[in-house]
Parts: sequence; C-alpha cells; structure tokens
Amino acid sequence: MAGSKLPVAVVGATGLAGQQFLAALGDHPWFDVVRIAASERSAGKKYGDAIRDAGQSRWFATDPLPARFEALTVENAAQMKTDGLAAIFTAVESEPARELEPRYAKDVPVFSTASAFRYEEDVPILLPAVNGEHWKMVDAQQKNRGWKGYIIPVPNCTTTGMVHTLKPLADAFGLKAVMMTSMQAVSGAGRSPGVLALDITDNVIPYISKEEEKVEKETKKILGLPDVKVSCTCTRVPVIEGHTEAVFASLGKPASVEDVKKAFRGFGAHMRELALPSSPAAWITVHEDPYRPQPRRDRDADGGMTTSVGRVREDSVLANGMKWVLVSHNTKMGAAKGAILAAELMKVKGRLG
Amino acid sequence: MAGSKLPVAVVGATGLAGQQFLAALGDHPWFDVVRIAASERSAGKKYGDAIRDAGQSRWFATDPLPARFEALTVENAAQMKTDGLAAIFTAVESEPARELEPRYAKDVPVFSTASAFRYEEDVPILLPAVNGEHWKMVDAQQKNRGWKGYIIPVPNCTTTGMVHTLKPLADAFGLKAVMMTSMQAVSGAGRSPGVLALDITDNVIPYISKEEEKVEKETKKILGLPDVKVSCTCTRVPVIEGHTEAVFASLGKPASVEDVKKAFRGFGAHMRELALPSSPAAWITVHEDPYRPQPRRDRDADGGMTTSVGRVREDSVLANGMKWVLVSHNTKMGAAKGAILAAELMKVKGRLG
Amino acid sequence: MAGSKLPVAVVGATGLAGQQFLAALGDHPWFDVVRIAASERSAGKKYGDAIRDAGQSRWFATDPLPARFEALTVENAAQMKTDGLAAIFTAVESEPARELEPRYAKDVPVFSTASAFRYEEDVPILLPAVNGEHWKMVDAQQKNRGWKGYIIPVPNCTTTGMVHTLKPLADAFGLKAVMMTSMQAVSGAGRSPGVLALDITDNVIPYISKEEEKVEKETKKILGLPDVKVSCTCTRVPVIEGHTEAVFASLGKPASVEDVKKAFRGFGAHMRELALPSSPAAWITVHEDPYRPQPRRDRDADGGMTTSVGRVREDSVLANGMKWVLVSHNTKMGAAKGAILAAELMKVKGRLG
Amino acid sequence: MAGSKLPVAVVGATGLAGQQFLAALGDHPWFDVVRIAASERSAGKKYGDAIRDAGQSRWFATDPLPARFEALTVENAAQMKTDGLAAIFTAVESEPARELEPRYAKDVPVFSTASAFRYEEDVPILLPAVNGEHWKMVDAQQKNRGWKGYIIPVPNCTTTGMVHTLKPLADAFGLKAVMMTSMQAVSGAGRSPGVLALDITDNVIPYISKEEEKVEKETKKILGLPDVKVSCTCTRVPVIEGHTEAVFASLGKPASVEDVKKAFRGFGAHMRELALPSSPAAWITVHEDPYRPQPRRDRDADGGMTTSVGRVREDSVLANGMKWVLVSHNTKMGAAKGAILAAELMKVKGRLG
Repeated sequence: MAGSKLPVAVVGATGLAGQQFLAALGDHPWFDVVRIAASERSAGKKYGDAIRDAGQSRWFATDPLPARFEALTVENAAQMKTDGLAAIFTAVESEPARELEPRYAKDVPVFSTASAFRYEEDVPILLPAVNGEHWKMVDAQQKNRGWKGYIIPVPNCTTTGMVHTLKPLADAFGLKAVMMTSMQAVSGAGRSPGVLALDITDNVIPYISKEEEKVEKETKKILGLPDVKVSCTCTRVPVIEGHTEAVFASLGKPASVEDVKKAFRGFGAHMRELALPSSPAAWITVHEDPYRPQPRRDRDADGGMTTSVGRVREDSVLANGMKWVLVSHNTKMGAAKGAILAAELMKVKGRLG
Repeated sequence: MAGSKLPVAVVGATGLAGQQFLAALGDHPWFDVVRIAASERSAGKKYGDAIRDAGQSRWFATDPLPARFEALTVENAAQMKTDGLAAIFTAVESEPARELEPRYAKDVPVFSTASAFRYEEDVPILLPAVNGEHWKMVDAQQKNRGWKGYIIPVPNCTTTGMVHTLKPLADAFGLKAVMMTSMQAVSGAGRSPGVLALDITDNVIPYISKEEEKVEKETKKILGLPDVKVSCTCTRVPVIEGHTEAVFASLGKPASVEDVKKAFRGFGAHMRELALPSSPAAWITVHEDPYRPQPRRDRDADGGMTTSVGRVREDSVLANGMKWVLVSHNTKMGAAKGAILAAELMKVKGRLG
Repeated sequence: MAGSKLPVAVVGATGLAGQQFLAALGDHPWFDVVRIAASERSAGKKYGDAIRDAGQSRWFATDPLPARFEALTVENAAQMKTDGLAAIFTAVESEPARELEPRYAKDVPVFSTASAFRYEEDVPILLPAVNGEHWKMVDAQQKNRGWKGYIIPVPNCTTTGMVHTLKPLADAFGLKAVMMTSMQAVSGAGRSPGVLALDITDNVIPYISKEEEKVEKETKKILGLPDVKVSCTCTRVPVIEGHTEAVFASLGKPASVEDVKKAFRGFGAHMRELALPSSPAAWITVHEDPYRPQPRRDRDADGGMTTSVGRVREDSVLANGMKWVLVSHNTKMGAAKGAILAAELMKVKGRLG
Repeated sequence: MAGSKLPVAVVGATGLAGQQFLAALGDHPWFDVVRIAASERSAGKKYGDAIRDAGQSRWFATDPLPARFEALTVENAAQMKTDGLAAIFTAVESEPARELEPRYAKDVPVFSTASAFRYEEDVPILLPAVNGEHWKMVDAQQKNRGWKGYIIPVPNCTTTGMVHTLKPLADAFGLKAVMMTSMQAVSGAGRSPGVLALDITDNVIPYISKEEEKVEKETKKILGLPDVKVSCTCTRVPVIEGHTEAVFASLGKPASVEDVKKAFRGFGAHMRELALPSSPAAWITVHEDPYRPQPRRDRDADGGMTTSVGRVREDSVLANGMKWVLVSHNTKMGAAKGAILAAELMKVKGRLG
C-alpha cells in the first residue's frame, strides 16, 4: 500500500527527465511521489494541466503518465518545503540545481540528474553496480556541509553505459586507457531547445557542448582510477533514444575476446543479494550477432536498465587492446531510473527513510 | 568538341555507382562516353529504357542524367568489345569484376570501384593527391600479366576520406597508428539489397560486413606504410550520402593543433600544376566551427571532392595523439568521381589515350 | 495448458508478417503453434536457424520471438500436411497464396493476410467488429468449392483502419462517399524488397502500387455498401510502423462533431460479450488533443489493436461532410493480429476446432 | 554593376526566411541589398558575427551566404530608416510585422512573408503567375492609408503550390471545390521553436496551428473565387524541405486527365514576355512516373520555383473530380524567392524603384 511507502518529491517534473521520473515511480514498490515541483510558471496548477498547453498534451515520455499524478498540485521548486519527505529526485538544469539542491539537502537526501555537484570532492557520482561503495562519501559530505541530507548525482548519460562495461574489465584485467566515439540520441538534449529536425535529419552533428569533458572526468572518478586515460569524440545522430558508443580500451594485462565476454556476462552478480527493485536481470548483455546492439532494438532491454554490448574483438593499436560497441538507454539507466536505482541502494544501506 | 575527346565506356551503368559515372561524365572536358554496358537483363535496350521499370524512373543519382545518354544502346558487359576505347570505367560487384576487368584490361585501361583487384601486389589503389606516384605500378602489372591495358581500382569509400587526412600528417610528422569510428551513409550499400528504412530509421547498425578489414588493409597500402597500425569500427547511420569519421591518430613526433591544421590546409598544393579537371579547389577544408563538418551540409563541397575536417584537437591516450572528425562524399570522391580523377592522372602521365 | 489449446500452423513464418503471427501467438490462450512452414529454402531447418543468416538474427518483429518456436522444424509450405490442425495462418505473397491456400482449405480453415482471394464472391474479408456477420459467407464457400475448411482473408492494412472508423458512422448516419489520403509506414512493404532508406529518408513517395484500388474495392465489400463512392491517394512516409490516414466523408444525414465522436466512442460495444482474446478494450480512441493521433505515439495502443482518431471536424465541401485523422497499426490489427482476431471469431461461432 | 541596381533592405535577416532572402539576392540582376535589419539583440553587429554564436555558424540556408553580406552592419529593425531604399523585404513573425511593415510602407514598397496584412481588403496576396493583376490593389491601399509605399505579402507556403495548380484548371474548366491533405516539411516551422527531432522522427504530426484556415482563406482570395469551397488537413512529416500535397478538385465542367495535364503544362506562358529574373522555365512540371513528385527529388526544380505535379487521375467522388499530387518548395517559391518574384513584377509594372 502506498501508505507504507516512503514519501518522495520530484522536482523539475514538467521537463523530459522529470517526466521519466514520474513514469518510473508510478508503481514503485518503495517510493511514493507525494510532491511535485517545477518552475514558478507551472506552480499552483494541477500537474495534468501544467503539462497541457492550448489543448496539447506535453507529456513526452514513451511510458504513460500514472493517472494519479494528474491531480497533484505543482509546487514552486524555489519554495518547496522538505518536511515529511524521505527523498527528493531533481531533474533540473545545472544552474537552478546549484541553488535548489543544497537547500533541499540540508534536510533530505537528493538524487540528481544535474551535473552541478558531480565534480565536488565529497560528492559521489553513484552507479550502484559500478561504484556502489562510493555511497559512503556522503558521510564526509554531511560533515563538511552540516547537512542532514546529501546530494547524490548520477553521471552524464554518455558516461553511464561506458563505465558499466569498463568496470568488469578494470576489475579483471586492469584498465590503462579508453577511447570512445559516441553516437548519441536526440532525447539527450531534452526539449528546450532540444535538437531540431532541421539540423539532424539526414545528418550527424559532430559536437555536443561540454560532453566530452564530462565523460572524461566522470569516468575517472566513478571507476576510482584517476590515472586512466580517457579520450572521446561525442556526436549526435538521428536516433530518438539510446546512446551507441564505439569503445576501444587498453587493458592492464592480456585478455582474450572470450575472457572479456565472460567478464561482461558475469558483471553485476554482487547486486543480486541487494534485490534493488530497479536492477535489471542482466546488467550487461553480450550479443554474438555482429549487427547488434542497435539503439532501436536494444535500448529498452530490461526496462532500459541493461547495457547491451556486441562486436567484442581485439584492437591492434592499444596495448592489450580490446574494442566493442555498446547501447545504453540515455533517459532511463542514463538519467531518471539510474537516480532511482541510486536511491534504492541508499535505502538498503540504511541511509534513506 | 566531343569528337576530340577520348572515347570511354561505363560498365555496370544501370547501378547506383554506374549512374554516378554517367552523371559526372556528362560534361567532362576530356572523356566522352560512347559505350554503356550492364548485365544481360538490360542489354539491347536504350539506356533511357533500361533505367525505367513499369513507368518508374530508376535514375537515382542526385545529379540529372545527361540527356544524350538516354539513347545509347546498353551492351552486355560480358561481351562488350573494347576496340576504339581509351578507358573503361567499371562499377560492378566484386565477383563479376573479377571476370570482366582482366578481359577488358588486356587491351584498355580499366578504372574500377570494385574491390576485386585492390589487394594484388602489382595493382595500385590510386588516390591522385595521396599516392599519385603509385600509378607506376601499372608497368609491373602490364609486364606480369601481358596486358596492354591495366586495372586501377579506387579504395573503399570509407578509406578514401581518412587517408586524405592522414597523408599530410604522415608526411609532416610521421604516423604510427590510427583508430577510427565511422558513421556511414546508406548510399554506400547501393540498392540491391541496400539498407532498408525498416532497419536504419531511428537506429544505428554497428557492423558493415568486411568494411573494417578493407579500411585497415587499404590504408597501409595507399600510404605505403605497412607498419602503421590501423583499428576501426564501422557503423551505419540514417544519413543518405556522406561518410562521417571520428579519427584518432598517433603521430611520429609532437605536433600542435595549429601544426596539424596547417598541414591539412596545405595539402594538395602539388596537384595544382597537374590541373586535373575533377580536382577540388581545396583538397581539405578545415572548419573552426565545432559543429562542423556535418554530412548533409558538407558532403557536396566542391562537387563532392573535398574532404571536410573539423574538431581538430589533442588526444590524451595515444603518443603524440591528435583527433578530428571528417566528412567525405562516399559516392563522389569515394567512388565514381574518384575513379575519373584517377583516369585524369593517367592521361596527364601519358598512359591513357 | 498448451495441450488443451487448438493446434495451428503458421505458413510464411520467416517473413515479416509471419514473424508477427509467431510473436502474437506465443501466449495465445486458445491457439498453439505446432507447425511452422516456409519456402523450400528454409525447409528442414530449425526455425531459430532459419531466421539466422551468417550469424545475423533475421527476427525483425518488435516483440520477441517466443523461445519455444526456435526448436520447431520448418516445413516446406508446398508439402505441408494439414492433418491434426485446427487452423492455418498464412503470411505469403499473393501468388503462392493462390496455390497454397486452396490446398490447405480443402481440410482446414485458413486465415490469410494475402490478397489472393479477397475479391471472390464467396470469400469474406473479415473484420470482426465491422462485418462480423460476414463469416457466414464460408457456408457458400464450402459448398461452392467442396471444401471442409475455408479461406478468410483480412483486408489490406490501409483499408483496415479506415473501415473501423467508417462503420459506426455508416450505421448511425449513413455513408455516401469517402475520400482519403494515407501516409503509410515502411513496414507495410515488408523486407523483400521493402523500402530503401535511400528512397524514403527526407522524402515522401506519392504512390504505392495497386494500393488505392484495393482500398476502394475492399471498403465497399467490407461495409456491404456497393454504392458508396471511395477515392484515395496512398503515399509512403518515413515512419516505421503505423499508417496515418486523413479521411473526408460524406454522411447520409447531418451530424455534429459531437455526434460523430460519440459514434466513434461507442463503437465495438457489441464485441464485448464475445470476449475475443485479441479484442482491444477500446476499438476506437478519440483524441481531443489536436496534435494526436501520431503513428509513433499511438500505433501500439492496446497491443496495436485500437484505431486512434483525432481532429474530428466538419468538412465544408462534401454534403454532410466530416473529416478526421486516424492511426492504425498496419502489421498488428492490419495484418497478423487481425487474422488471429478473425480466427477467434470463427471459434466463438463454432466453426473452428 | 551593383551601382546601377535598386537598393533594397532585408528585415528579419538573421532568421531562416531572412537568410533565404540573402541567399537569393546575392546575385540578383535588379536588386542590391544595402541594408540588413534584425531585432535589437543583433543590432550593431556585423551580419557575419550576428549569425555566429559561440563559434557556431547559424547560417542555416542550404545555399551559401554571399560573402559581401558578412560585413554589413545589422540595424535595429524598429529604428531602420527607409531613405534611399527602393524596396524592403521582410521576414519576421506576424506580430512584429504588424508594427514594422506599415511604418516602412509609408515610404517604401514592402514585400513580406508574414501573414499580418494578408487578409485586409486592400492588400493583394501576390503570386505573379496566378493573380498578377492583383498588384493594382496597391492603388487603393496607398489611397486608403496615405502611403507612398505599400505592403505586398506572399501566401502561406502551403497555399502557394496548390493555387499554382488550381489556377490553370479554374481558367480552363472552372473550379467548384478543392480538398487537400498536406505533408509539410519541418523547415516551414523555422527555428524558434521549430520542429524537434524528438517529435517528428518516425512520426507524422496531424496538425499545424492555424494552417488550414490560412490555406482556405488565401486560396479563395488569390484565385478571386470567393465561392469556391476549400477543405484541407495539414500535417507535418519527417521531410526537411518541400511540401507535398494530395489535392482533389471538383471542376466546373468535365475534363479528361489529358486535358488537365495539358492545362498544367501550358500554365505560365503569359509570364514569358515579362522576363522576370526569378521566373522558372516551367511553372508546372507534370510527371508521368507515378512515383513522382517526391519532395527530396523535386523540391529544387528550377531553383525551387517550379511546382511539380504527378499522379493526375480522375476522382470518383466529386463532380468532375480530378486528383493529383504536387511538390512545392516551401522556403523558396513558398517564401523568400516568391516575395522577390513579386517585387520583380512590381518593377516591371513601374511601381518599384
């Protein structure tokens, strides 16, 4: 029953990422959305009205809006009270996040898709299967900042898929360097301004502002490998959802293609006993069909929480080089559902609710 | 006047690459298409009828069909006579090429988009601006095989753009290794079977059969650098024409971003005195706008003969690492017009006509 | 339990429509696929192998292949025995259908997506919610042809959505004429040859061979209104699945927009008591949001069995003119699942199994 | 020489339609752009800087920016002086047009792509080949309003193609009614907000705000046939440029398909003697290939000024019914170049310069 669930809020609820939070939390076994906030413009409206504009529905998530959220009144995020909340999920731009999140975190744990605090020393960028133990950084964070809550951001959506595949290899063989070219979906740019059909139809855009720097910095921090070298080229392609990444890695010692596939397939076993509701059955799926993974066919694997890998083969340039292609759902595991997964971990660790 | 031009034939003229030959040769100052050949199915028809099917035009090139080719009678490629021809342009699959091209080459120079003979020792894969001096391999070829003509293939369309950017760097700084991820246009797959909209819409296909092996082998041969290491991942994206490639290179010695741009911009100066009709004004254009090059906006630069480069920056993984993105027109410089350029070089060298 | 279900066969099982049959029948409460057939080329192989080609999966349906079908041995459709089968679902081209279906129908009911027999006088084109009573035509069919079974085809996928919206209006207000422009998905063309990305990307193709004639003829027959005038223009657009149709209709008497919406919304009530497993909860959904229906957002409504309607408004040209836009899933309700629905009706009517 | 050309200004020059004006006026034989204006935000910058943002070129027209415009200083449209100008081309939204255009028109002829004044009684919506004689309405306009200049808007881009095909039929056979379904390109929505790839990829959007009303009203006014009935459904499809329209018309008397094609082909003969620089060689091209016209292949016919027609056939619903499909370039003939053509007509009529 909803009554026994932990009450949570979703901030930035009218945007695309905020909608993904609501879609994912409609049936969540542990969390119950009791408060919804957005910018002043939407405040005071019923959520159902806030996402309607001149008769047009502005619900853009693929999954439907859980009916009971339509009647919730949208609060002004700048003034939202935190009392009675067990957690707050934020899906706002970096600038407002810098103001809102610390205010919330004084009292309540905040799980964020924004980059505002990702690079601060006492803030973990948390991917439960990859660096689950980083949750402990919140102790220092609370102490440093005098907060009762804390801020836990998820990584940039392009980092997420890649580090899921790097982690098992780093553990098994060591990792020296990684080079990656991404082919990213348009949903990653959201809706304002988003990517115009006029720009991306029949086209590739070879640059996404600040993306490469984020991926390079976050990969080192999440893996806890400050010396690993990371170099990437991030591009946008005419795909709706699901980031595709061509990865080339230099391992710490020789490994065969079969060794690598085995490491991929075994990844995430340690997550099973935690039984987090949003965990996929398989954290990584390895395709033998050389034409896979494909974003359209594989992005929704296991609710968009599985990283799909294929084309695992040796690379002839790097020392102990190995290369593969991956697909990861950028607005599910790579954003809202990833943040929910992080909250689930914190609950299991006794640090939420 | 057409009368003073060199008479040439186009074989495989009904296919997509063959159409590109005809589109490009309509106004050629040196060559005049006097003979058109295709498979038995089209033989005996007027070309204009051969590319019409139940009232539907099957002329698929973007540029129009030069009107006078409509009335030429299509010959059966397997029986086409070579007398009176100065050159033959072939645009057929690898298997028929293996039979047809040697038969033609007994008497006449053959310029081919097929891969059939690319990897034979006495056959140059000729890109005039990159390895123009390789034309001399035809001496050995003629001697070995007792031919009066010869076979000169152009590279795979994915190799072409990349080696144009590697050559000036190899010359200026040396080249140790190159890693590349391609985002290739659907026109590269032709029309039979071609790429189905059902497969590529809202999607990326992470594999193109045999493509990576071709690029790796051809790059070494064209650059004349058998020891350079090449590793790539070739993918297909929803783009009509124009291949985009994210390249990471390890140079032989340190070079700054400005050094590299300067090398790119200076490339092809030696071609000017040859005054080949199909030469672009700029062999490489370097964009400072980080959002360029884009296939839709840049593929047709200078008639599809320019390689457009952007996002030149340092790579942190490779020794003396440098990375960039390029766009090259896969069916113009990368196929038919590239073969015409090769024929132009041979004419200037006195080996054609 | 599968044991108590009716044993059925799927013929043409390796093609796109055949795959849709298998995807839909994996969990069917009444039917159990016990036999799979295809052309000679696939015969003798396990189904899982038959749809794999050089390591590539050729399972193209969006829904997954039910695992147990992988191990079924594919039979040669031309020699498949019909003993022990309660029904046969065929998904083959018109030409083979003309030979195979009568042979099967001697003994067993055949439900077909092919057009081969649609226009014969004793053959119903069956849409259970629209012309359910037409099933009785099989009596004459069996008598005329001396068959124990019968052939029941479903309509062309473009007809299906339109007649679902015309039927309630014809019943409530009469129907004099209908004009329609379709914007059809590429999946309607299947995979051989299918629609090339090279042709449809950034494009509209204004013609689909024989489509308009089919829609015009089938609409009259299904509605049982030989005098209704039908005129349409069928086009192909860059959409993967889901046909969009802009319909203009001349009703038999005046009706307001609200009258028409009410008729749409009430449609299909008579189907409830039949409790066919593949029936949608709502046969027609009427959108008030003027930006709906959209094929990507609405095609999968209720398993692809609902016809989504929007933009209902008066037309100023036709007598008692009304216009609307509809979206219907062309390979679900418009093909395989529509044929399964027809079989379900026949079972309820006591004419199957 | 530019010195002998008529000096003109382009207002709204940074937007997509404004860019189309500049692209088209770079080499114009009669007009010379001497002044460029935009909103306050761009005022004072060189045009080349105004369309650059953080290093990114925001020149989005397909044709290149004529180099000499880069150095022109952008003026504030609200304060631009009109002295010395022979004409002003405006490409602004309807709301600013309502203020700016009358201010300019006090002194100088204004040719506008905005809808602000289209529906006023003394304002012609001018398509030179269709209603060239409407130019005379500017006499009343000048008298009514006390202006030395005047305002001449072009139609909505969706109206333009359709009335070009209706006019020859109305003249030859009479016209009673027209029904049309459009499949419109995304460029019609401009860039702010424009159409998001997230919305239109793999999709059709069945509504464009206010479009249908505009088409219906403008068609009657331009053809000078207030009693003709017009009904349409306007949709957006994943096409970059070029509107496709499926038209059904009721003619005033019987006409065969050949009669109609002949009327189409003969259209525009009266324009030849005017020798307007922007006139196409053929105002209407009739395709016999049933797969034409297609927006990607036909939009740029004769510089985007030709209306391409195909699939001409009888319609069985309307009295003397005829149907066809057309493609018209929405941002060339349908916007900037159409306005330039109107200005050319006014010059020939002695009312400009």
